[in-house]
Amino acid sequence: MNVGACVFDVFGTTVDWRSSVAREARLFFEQKGIGGVDALEFAVEWRKLYQPSMEEVRSGRRPFTILDQLHRESLEKLISKYGISGLRSEEVDYLNRAWHRLDPWPDVVEGLARLKKKLIIAPCSNGNIALMVNLAKRAGLPWDCILGAETARAYKPMPEAYLTSCRQLGLPPARVMMVAAHNGDLKAAKAQGLATAFVPRPAEHGPGQKTDLAADPACVDLPVASFTELASRLGC
Amino acid sequence: MNVGACVFDVFGTTVDWRSSVAREARLFFEQKGIGGVDALEFAVEWRKLYQPSMEEVRSGRRPFTILDQLHRESLEKLISKYGISGLRSEEVDYLNRAWHRLDPWPDVVEGLARLKKKLIIAPCSNGNIALMVNLAKRAGLPWDCILGAETARAYKPMPEAYLTSCRQLGLPPARVMMVAAHNGDLKAAKAQGLATAFVPRPAEHGPGQKTDLAADPACVDLPVASFTELASRLGC
Repeated sequence: MNVGACVFDVFGTTVDWRSSVAREARLFFEQKGIGGVDALEFAVEWRKLYQPSMEEVRSGRRPFTILDQLHRESLEKLISKYGISGLRSEEVDYLNRAWHRLDPWPDVVEGLARLKKKLIIAPCSNGNIALMVNLAKRAGLPWDCILGAETARAYKPMPEAYLTSCRQLGLPPARVMMVAAHNGDLKAAKAQGLATAFVPRPAEHGPGQKTDLAADPACVDLPVASFTELASRLGC
Repeated sequence: MNVGACVFDVFGTTVDWRSSVAREARLFFEQKGIGGVDALEFAVEWRKLYQPSMEEVRSGRRPFTILDQLHRESLEKLISKYGISGLRSEEVDYLNRAWHRLDPWPDVVEGLARLKKKLIIAPCSNGNIALMVNLAKRAGLPWDCILGAETARAYKPMPEAYLTSCRQLGLPPARVMMVAAHNGDLKAAKAQGLATAFVPRPAEHGPGQKTDLAADPACVDLPVASFTELASRLGC
């Protein structure tokens, strides 16, 4: 493999969205004196609205809209569903930016720092640029640039999300490795000619996770245990 | 000023394109046994085709086309003008990527590193993403993300180039500072509500430079001598 760049899924693969959003929600509810809401359940419910919100864009029913806006609309639905009232718009904005304050998995910062010395590293995420930049600065993710949905104006797993990222790097898809904890993401990347690496994140969905526990050999070129093992396997 | 991000012009402001392209051209001509071409003149002639090539896009006569492609077309014209023959397409590609191998001015790496600790830093350049990424990796420029013409799909000084960059950072223009060695760039940024800083680069065009020797008070909020002084003035 003659890899020139690794591009990464972020939510679940690079960062632990579930416990981070739950922490942010818990802190927010405490500060606002909002009782009786299970913050972990709230995080999971919020995430459940993620795919349907993007599907409106993928289907063409809605023009391209950044994830911060989709997250915000989903959050308003949840606030209503949970019967929470009296929040000012800026307070909802702050809670919405919980997605900008996600913690990386323990192997990520070291693995990315090693990979960056030899390869281009970038997110190829459905998160928008501001979200990715703020998240990276807080978490210490040393991306070379931010790619993904907003620069491609297409949400994964649409082919354009992968192909535009390769084109923007000036590299043929075969020299770009998509790294993800989700076989579905890698299947879509592989179909466009990208190289693929699978990193298991068996705690992404909490205890008892049933999905994506192992790499699907049909679409994964390189199964690894961590970002640091990925760096080693790519000679970094 | 409540600055959240600094965005930078690159060619001339951050890197010394003139002597770097001349060096690359000189090495290339030596390796290929091409005699009788003044490399510094070649670099300057190449740069002269820069604004006219972008003007085709700005005017709407041509769909958005990345700078690597515009540079390549300009290079082909120059190769023909200088009567150079026998180059393979990959060799022309290599010379075209001279623009990916530009050296930063001496104050740049330290200044950016200091600014990055407190602020978002990104290029807002007419260079495309691959050009900016490759240049940054070689020169050690620690950008948080790559903004500019390719993500905005508009060439400076079109308003969209500045406004899209602010929107992609999730910041109002007044919280984004455009940093450039060119008053024209800053005038266009100021007209869109951005804050502005001028850094003089009196050697950009070599000895005897007559333009942009000093900040134009009509469009410059913060005149500084260097990127390191900019960091100090912004409390970084």
